[in-house]
Amino acid sequence: MAGTGLWLVGARGSVATTAVVGLLALRAKLVEPVGCVTERPEFAGVPLPAWEDIVVGGHDVVHTPLEKRAEQLADAGLIPHRVLAATATGLRAVDARIRDGYHPATHTGAQADAVARLVEDITTFRGEHGLDRVIVVNVSSTEPPAPSLPEYSSLDLLEAALADPARSVLPPSSLMAYAALRAGCPFVDFTPSPGLRLPVLHDLAVSLGLPYAGSDGKTGETLLRTVLAPMFTARALRVRSWAGTNLLGGGDGANLADPVQAAGKLESKARGLAALLGEGVTAPLHIDNVPDLGEQKTAWDHVSFEGFLGARMNLQFTWTGLDSSLAAPLILDLTRLVAAAHDAGQSGPLASLAFFFKDPVATDEHRFAQQTDMLTEWAQALVHSADSYPQADTDTPETSPPADKMARRDAPGNGWGLGNARASDEASS
Amino acid sequence: MAGTGLWLVGARGSVATTAVVGLLALRAKLVEPVGCVTERPEFAGVPLPAWEDIVVGGHDVVHTPLEKRAEQLADAGLIPHRVLAATATGLRAVDARIRDGYHPATHTGAQADAVARLVEDITTFRGEHGLDRVIVVNVSSTEPPAPSLPEYSSLDLLEAALADPARSVLPPSSLMAYAALRAGCPFVDFTPSPGLRLPVLHDLAVSLGLPYAGSDGKTGETLLRTVLAPMFTARALRVRSWAGTNLLGGGDGANLADPVQAAGKLESKARGLAALLGEGVTAPLHIDNVPDLGEQKTAWDHVSFEGFLGARMNLQFTWTGLDSSLAAPLILDLTRLVAAAHDAGQSGPLASLAFFFKDPVATDEHRFAQQTDMLTEWAQALVHSADSYPQADTDTPETSPPADKMARRDAPGNGWGLGNARASDEASS
Amino acid sequence: MAGTGLWLVGARGSVATTAVVGLLALRAKLVEPVGCVTERPEFAGVPLPAWEDIVVGGHDVVHTPLEKRAEQLADAGLIPHRVLAATATGLRAVDARIRDGYHPATHTGAQADAVARLVEDITTFRGEHGLDRVIVVNVSSTEPPAPSLPEYSSLDLLEAALADPARSVLPPSSLMAYAALRAGCPFVDFTPSPGLRLPVLHDLAVSLGLPYAGSDGKTGETLLRTVLAPMFTARALRVRSWAGTNLLGGGDGANLADPVQAAGKLESKARGLAALLGEGVTAPLHIDNVPDLGEQKTAWDHVSFEGFLGARMNLQFTWTGLDSSLAAPLILDLTRLVAAAHDAGQSGPLASLAFFFKDPVATDEHRFAQQTDMLTEWAQALVHSADSYPQADTDTPETSPPADKMARRDAPGNGWGLGNARASDEASS
Amino acid sequence: MAGTGLWLVGARGSVATTAVVGLLALRAKLVEPVGCVTERPEFAGVPLPAWEDIVVGGHDVVHTPLEKRAEQLADAGLIPHRVLAATATGLRAVDARIRDGYHPATHTGAQADAVARLVEDITTFRGEHGLDRVIVVNVSSTEPPAPSLPEYSSLDLLEAALADPARSVLPPSSLMAYAALRAGCPFVDFTPSPGLRLPVLHDLAVSLGLPYAGSDGKTGETLLRTVLAPMFTARALRVRSWAGTNLLGGGDGANLADPVQAAGKLESKARGLAALLGEGVTAPLHIDNVPDLGEQKTAWDHVSFEGFLGARMNLQFTWTGLDSSLAAPLILDLTRLVAAAHDAGQSGPLASLAFFFKDPVATDEHRFAQQTDMLTEWAQALVHSADSYPQADTDTPETSPPADKMARRDAPGNGWGLGNARASDEASS
Ligand SMILES: NC(=O)c1ccc[n+]([C@@H]2O[C@H](COP(=O)([O-])OP(=O)(O)OC[C@H]3O[C@@H](n4cnc5c(N)ncnc54)[C@H](O)[C@@H]3O)[C@@H](O)[C@H]2O)c1
Ligand SMILES: NC(=O)c1ccc[n+]([C@@H]2O[C@H](COP(=O)([O-])OP(=O)(O)OC[C@H]3O[C@@H](n4cnc5c(N)ncnc54)[C@H](O)[C@@H]3O)[C@@H](O)[C@H]2O)c1
Ligand SMILES: NC(=O)c1ccc[n+]([C@@H]2O[C@H](COP(=O)([O-])OP(=O)(O)OC[C@H]3O[C@@H](n4cnc5c(N)ncnc54)[C@H](O)[C@@H]3O)[C@@H](O)[C@H]2O)c1
Ligand SMILES: NC(=O)c1ccc[n+]([C@@H]2O[C@H](COP(=O)([O-])OP(=O)(O)OC[C@H]3O[C@@H](n4cnc5c(N)ncnc54)[C@H](O)[C@@H]3O)[C@@H](O)[C@H]2O)c1
Ligand code: NA
Ligand code: NA
Repeated sequence: MAGTGLWLVGARGSVATTAVVGLLALRAKLVEPVGCVTERPEFAGVPLPAWEDIVVGGHDVVHTPLEKRAEQLADAGLIPHRVLAATATGLRAVDARIRDGYHPATHTGAQADAVARLVEDITTFRGEHGLDRVIVVNVSSTEPPAPSLPEYSSLDLLEAALADPARSVLPPSSLMAYAALRAGCPFVDFTPSPGLRLPVLHDLAVSLGLPYAGSDGKTGETLLRTVLAPMFTARALRVRSWAGTNLLGGGDGANLADPVQAAGKLESKARGLAALLGEGVTAPLHIDNVPDLGEQKTAWDHVSFEGFLGARMNLQFTWTGLDSSLAAPLILDLTRLVAAAHDAGQSGPLASLAFFFKDPVATDEHRFAQQTDMLTEWAQALVHSADSYPQADTDTPETSPPADKMARRDAPGNGWGLGNARASDEASS
Repeated sequence: MAGTGLWLVGARGSVATTAVVGLLALRAKLVEPVGCVTERPEFAGVPLPAWEDIVVGGHDVVHTPLEKRAEQLADAGLIPHRVLAATATGLRAVDARIRDGYHPATHTGAQADAVARLVEDITTFRGEHGLDRVIVVNVSSTEPPAPSLPEYSSLDLLEAALADPARSVLPPSSLMAYAALRAGCPFVDFTPSPGLRLPVLHDLAVSLGLPYAGSDGKTGETLLRTVLAPMFTARALRVRSWAGTNLLGGGDGANLADPVQAAGKLESKARGLAALLGEGVTAPLHIDNVPDLGEQKTAWDHVSFEGFLGARMNLQFTWTGLDSSLAAPLILDLTRLVAAAHDAGQSGPLASLAFFFKDPVATDEHRFAQQTDMLTEWAQALVHSADSYPQADTDTPETSPPADKMARRDAPGNGWGLGNARASDEASS
Repeated sequence: MAGTGLWLVGARGSVATTAVVGLLALRAKLVEPVGCVTERPEFAGVPLPAWEDIVVGGHDVVHTPLEKRAEQLADAGLIPHRVLAATATGLRAVDARIRDGYHPATHTGAQADAVARLVEDITTFRGEHGLDRVIVVNVSSTEPPAPSLPEYSSLDLLEAALADPARSVLPPSSLMAYAALRAGCPFVDFTPSPGLRLPVLHDLAVSLGLPYAGSDGKTGETLLRTVLAPMFTARALRVRSWAGTNLLGGGDGANLADPVQAAGKLESKARGLAALLGEGVTAPLHIDNVPDLGEQKTAWDHVSFEGFLGARMNLQFTWTGLDSSLAAPLILDLTRLVAAAHDAGQSGPLASLAFFFKDPVATDEHRFAQQTDMLTEWAQALVHSADSYPQADTDTPETSPPADKMARRDAPGNGWGLGNARASDEASS
Repeated sequence: MAGTGLWLVGARGSVATTAVVGLLALRAKLVEPVGCVTERPEFAGVPLPAWEDIVVGGHDVVHTPLEKRAEQLADAGLIPHRVLAATATGLRAVDARIRDGYHPATHTGAQADAVARLVEDITTFRGEHGLDRVIVVNVSSTEPPAPSLPEYSSLDLLEAALADPARSVLPPSSLMAYAALRAGCPFVDFTPSPGLRLPVLHDLAVSLGLPYAGSDGKTGETLLRTVLAPMFTARALRVRSWAGTNLLGGGDGANLADPVQAAGKLESKARGLAALLGEGVTAPLHIDNVPDLGEQKTAWDHVSFEGFLGARMNLQFTWTGLDSSLAAPLILDLTRLVAAAHDAGQSGPLASLAFFFKDPVATDEHRFAQQTDMLTEWAQALVHSADSYPQADTDTPETSPPADKMARRDAPGNGWGLGNARASDEASS
């Protein structure tokens, strides 16, 4: 599956930078693919883009050179110094493909103008690199939860509001998701921000035949919770309280120090615990900004539970993770998997990717073992569909894919002002 | 499924006493069945003996009255005082059904004589209470691993040695397992002792058509390991070391303070970790006797792992459990499930019960989520087999079970000197 | 030193009830004085009231019988059942000496009326039991911090406001402290509430020649912080962050779940850390109400520090305490020590008792080892002053103490309407 | 106090290398003196050698260049890469001053011959650099405890045995201590090895007027124990068990993986706990070699204690330290302080330096706060003695020190074959 673009929103952040350095290092065989789920034996045979076939670009609102950001991450222990040296040239190339993102504070005019420019950035990238498809992945700063507005349920209302220079109807993440869809791109929401989760955007993705995945990467405390909680259930033990404290530094720590920004994260964590254990569990949860921890995140959880004859027991864990190290390979995995889904003609929310997310779309399955099974089965099905439609992952573009599949992927531009950009893009694929 | 006997080897120990108090409390509806896996919705419809239908007896080598033992456990926080008061009469009744176990230091004569007496104890119990079947469950003190002897692979050699007053060829747990089989009883090995795991005993169980389950109840650190290790695997993270320290008091703590006795426990724990994560993980493990902890067990594990680009991270957990509270309901669950297996005509090692054990028989599946699925599916199959053979769990003994099933369960007494006891027992069912 | 009264404000709370049961148990020699600092060898020879010589009464705003409260605490693991049984009679006697406390929601009229009644309660108690002195100890629910008011710095303004039925100028803890002083009693502030810490009350205590101690008993996380922080300082290690989470149930947990109430507690904790380590340490701190923990408090602290050449290291601790078990013996210790101070003619804030408090009065010494030395030296000085003035701790009241000492303790009633009560009380001593 | 030599035994090890890099970095003002106790305000005015005045040499039995060792430590996170670059030249200079140490496996001939050579190495170093004195500091691999031999109590017997080529009477650390004394040098024992702790060597140090300090640097778990244990005592809480597990990689981890080598370490830790809390505390303790942790050491301690009315509580801590980062600045501190002691004419064991050691010589004081006071008072006394005898820390060697003081420091060479070397050394000062 040659020519997959990865368009990172928040391309100069910790997660994005680590993902890019890692991709370059994997390509150069400097490191083993530790942390890359799609390199596990279960995924052999799944038609995924190779490391060599992924081209990276993106948006950000700051201008720190990627190389400088990578140096900071090396000092923080996330990237070995030898890898840094070996990937410098590659990093500069990606840096040159990062465009200015949308920022509500600096943008003037209607949001529709911003959309047009964002779409243009992506389609130009797709065209210049002759890419089959571009996966847009949101790894920008967390935003607060969105209120409920009529515009979020009606495309007509939304587009009218977007055209109104006096309004800023969409939060940046959702504006970006909208732009991605309008550019004909699958979208991955690695943050808890509203992103593509507005009903109107979901409908649009479905109608455009575009798959999407999300929300909020599961890399630490929540990962453990979704692993441990089913144990209590299976053993008929009654969890009475599950308290958590997260200490984190880095850009994410600074951002989440703001209770308004943190709200989304706390909500997505709480939803998960209730889905796993039911209501009635006392579950205080804190996120603290502790700058001296740098890129490290430390989570402490205290689980108090009741056993036979009312016996009281507890489990505590302390997780010390380098968040971006955990997240970065998943960004690459998601790019590959969503590319395969797109290639296989899937559209709408990809529930089978729940494995990656704190707040998975289109499913209530939070149990990690079950999510692992779902993912593996889904990927296995791709092997077989790839077997039946071999053109999907070969280098023989002259062979036509089955009509309904093309149809679905053809949809994006229909009846929308960016037809040209998309068309030229498709032409180049 | 009326009339199931539970014969506890180690009937005056912590686990046994807690199980008996709990059974009485459940029967009297004094407590909810927290910790009882077979009371989960997944087991609705499985033909299991009701709490009312389980009669308890057992062997032990000490004479502390069960009521006194229960008081000690109440002081240690395992049993609420109100439950103690309400179950005193029931406890005295069980106490009256406990017989002297086999102890190598006090026994004189050939081990075969001991076997005859142990079998007699069990069959008398079965007869007096008119029980359909008796499940023998080993919850006696842990023994060291057994060496490899020719007698452990040949029934002829074994029986010759048993008959020789100069030898003590079988460790107590295996002698007890042998006696259980000779009494026509399914056997559950809740300890890491040799028990039924000698090849000759396995063959005997199969040939007698008796099911068995084991080994070594999974209630703490190992439970967590089998829950957590698959997470690292699924996420392609590389575990480099997994260190553990177990602090425990109680009878088990005192017993395991002896490195020879502890060897079995440490071995069964190590086997599990290697099965989960492969070789190459540094895994120091300690069991310390800390008498002041009483019935509490505290385990600390430190897992160091490598992620993307060589990043080093770790997870620590502290588990504070009341071991016997965790074990006791599983004893009741196992009694029910093995009774159902026996009733359904299953024989030999029950791999589907791996969920309960550190060192499961007949399977290498250590992953807890997979074990949970195996258990549920197996239990569901019993529902259906029960549907087809309704006599299995009804009160209509006049209806004959299918021939092959009877055949299997008929086997025990064949060609062995205890035919009479068994026969009278069957007659009484 | 016969005849010391202990007047507990919050007499039906967990701390108070545990202290009372403990006092009765010590008196009956049912338990060893574990946790009682004044029973350590360093205090031999200090003229302290014996357990036999302490009579307990108090105020509370609820009516739960002390015996019932004690049963709840026994179920929660704080009091052995056998001790409960043996102290029931004693508990009923104390219960009969508990009077209705002041509650702003139920009181009508001027606060001065409430004061008069509270003073009357205490002086009657002192008179009826012929006590030399009564130590008033505040162990009632935590109150929020008080604002800064002109009335808190001027006795005239304060008393005018107290007389005004339209105002409630003093928070309950301070009203109680004021009443204690007016009754001629030393005061101990075991809570973080404003209590005696208003400047006007401090001045009053000094002018009345009454000693006082406080604030906020140091029994868990803060105790550890004041033990551990000096280690980092002595080793020239640079603490960068010290994060803490406290999980607690019980009455205190419920109370502190209210952020307004918790403010005082959080403030007193933060003050201590800054005093120990200077400014510039990131120190997020949480108190969570986790009802299922009952009387247990679990605190987790994560300390990140920098060493030689910028190396980053950390220390984590988890403290699992039964708060009232830790606090109760200190209540008895404080009663004894403040009685001795009063007897020795000391007045105003007792800085030497900083050992017991999170937010010690009249000193900035938070280091626990230094506080231990201060306490021991101070107590040793009492031995010697007792040697020179032997009448202070003997049963020969006819011998006059030195004039200036008496003068100081004589002060309370002067120029205040409760002269009679006090006089009769003194007469009875 | 110009011209102090630091002679490191084990000069190519982690602790030594970190100390050398650190000294160079401090001298170049590349880093702040975090972790250096002698830079704390309490030590202002104490006549200590400046960083500039310390010259380093040493012995080791391996030949890895110091610069290479430092790179490994940089990769392990102990030394910042920028510091490494800036100290490379200095490191090479120190490297050139490292001589072959004594190794029992490679040495042939009598141990006396080895001593002569080791003494020669040190005195040559002292002479070439015109040093006032050389402090010999043992940071070589841990050795097992020594048996009790008559030669360890009699100088005559010892020297006879040393002269016998058929014997290896002294373990390397003690041979090195003996050589240090014979070279007229104070000795610091930072390891738990026998070193100078044989009675005969103690006597020799005293008779030669040489001060010494030891044993076994206190940098992690034991440091915390000596900080925390006094808290339990002061609060009259009864510690029932104190369990510990240490996970460590690095050279020390590999060495201590051998139970024989670890014995010394475990013994010195156990002695400390008993001295702090008395006998009767269950205290299992483990040291595990976990290579993947590299230079990191993680200790977990679980303290179970009893409070008022028998209440059971616990404290757990996890310490994650970089051992060599913690040890290295103490090596520099000890060099300075022992130099000052020598300069002030002190001889024999320096009990006041207990602050630095797990198993302090000549004192049973293990409480860290008390040790801190002892150290500060002792250092303050040096300020005053320096005031009275200003020549001790000035550059005016023409002024004679008081006779007895000189006498003491004059002793080393007397009646021993290395008179010349020492004389030329003294001449150069
Ligand atoms: N393990 C993990 O790291 C993890 C897990 C789950 C979710 N996430 C989420 O991933 C996101 C990124 O985390 P990070 O640690 O890399 O944070 P970061 O602060 O290092 O990076 C965020 C980047 O987004 C950029 N940005 C902000 N607003 C933007 C906009 N409107 N358009 C384009 N770029 C914008 C910022 O300039 C910054 O470079 C966060 O939302 C975080 O919550 C991370
Ligand atoms: N969570 C758990 O508690 C758990 C988990 C896994 C395995 N186990 C195993 O269960 C067993 C029981 O644990 P426990 O805590 O109840 O121990 P315990 O010491 O309280 O009880 C063991 C009992 O076995 C009796 N016994 C010893 N030898 C006997 C013999 N030859 N015949 C009959 N009785 C004999 C003893 O007298 C004692 O009453 C142990 O082997 C333990 O390792 C327990
Ligand atoms: N280790 C400790 O337990 C500890 C340490 C430091 C401080 N404290 C403080 O001690 C106090 C008592 O703690 P607790 O756990 O016993 O709480 P609790 O809730 O069990 O008891 C408080 C009692 O005070 C009573 N009360 C409330 N308002 C009153 C009033 N106006 N007058 C008289 N009585 C009143 C309540 O009815 C209750 O009986 C709290 O303020 C707590 O913060 C406790
Ligand atoms: N925090 C700490 O690091 C700490 C604390 C207390 C004690 N210690 C002790 O300090 C010592 C050094 O620790 P490390 O981590 O640097 O160990 P290391 O293994 O890195 O270094 C020890 C060095 O000693 C050398 N050596 C071995 N035998 C020798 C001999 N006979 N003569 C000369 N050199 C010899 C080795 O070659 C090696 O270079 C150990 O004994 C350790 O127990 C260290
Ligand atoms: Na969902
Ligand atoms: Na103060």
